[in-house]
Amino acid sequence: MSKLHWEDFTPGAVAVYGPRLVTREQIVAFAAEFDPQPMHLDEAAARTTMLGGLAASGGHICCLLMRIIADGMVNKTHSMGAPGVVEVRWLKPLRPNTQVRVRATVLETRAPKSRSDFGFVTCLFEMLDGHDDVITTLTSPLMIKRREAAARP
Amino acid sequence: MSKLHWEDFTPGAVAVYGPRLVTREQIVAFAAEFDPQPMHLDEAAARTTMLGGLAASGGHICCLLMRIIADGMVNKTHSMGAPGVVEVRWLKPLRPNTQVRVRATVLETRAPKSRSDFGFVTCLFEMLDGHDDVITTLTSPLMIKRREAAARP
Repeated sequence: MSKLHWEDFTPGAVAVYGPRLVTREQIVAFAAEFDPQPMHLDEAAARTTMLGGLAASGGHICCLLMRIIADGMVNKTHSMGAPGVVEVRWLKPLRPNTQVRVRATVLETRAPKSRSDFGFVTCLFEMLDGHDDVITTLTSPLMIKRREAAARP
Repeated sequence: MSKLHWEDFTPGAVAVYGPRLVTREQIVAFAAEFDPQPMHLDEAAARTTMLGGLAASGGHICCLLMRIIADGMVNKTHSMGAPGVVEVRWLKPLRPNTQVRVRATVLETRAPKSRSDFGFVTCLFEMLDGHDDVITTLTSPLMIKRREAAARP
């Protein structure tokens, strides 16, 4: 299957990627490496926090989201990366043994005036848990090659 | 040393945390797990991209930043977590064998009207490379217990 260009994205388009199972071992291992706060490492410590029990680091949720969209979407496009993230909102805890999926909605497609080789595809990514509840949202402008540019020698 | 409360933070305060060495092996291992795009996995593939050579995933940069501030700051406060991230900007590539540090600047301290137990400390976190160039910025409101609340039985 040929890879997608900027022109292939339309505002309002929705797709769902995944699922991916998140285990307790993964949650604790990620936290030990990147976010060693007690509420992501230890069940008893987590119970006394607002999380109410062991839950993944918000950073871990973002990384899982990134992996799911890399496999499902980004690596199937002529991606050039992203300049950043507009916003992340952690809405619900991610518990051990959850099947997560990511719903991607194209918010906007925009071609910069100063560059003809790529365009921005701004997406809202929503991480869903097993009940289809949104546990995290992340909004990011992806840079994707334009068809004309890719056709150039 | 006793842990810090919300009242201990003042707008304009600056601190630098780290350093932490980032190796090629770490960059490739992280990308293989969470962001398997060729520009984060393979030197030759990376050379043809805007990165101009192998560089860490933006997600990896954020995770390293998170770890540095967990050790240097967050775990030394009465932290209650964070509702999200306001913005991330990836400004320069993070190359293998770079010593990174994080400069934290308190932008705002705010006590919500509806809750008396914690306040927000909004910080600008800047990841610095070995030349003190800013390679990534991340802005996030941290939730930190108020001293009065902590003193309650």
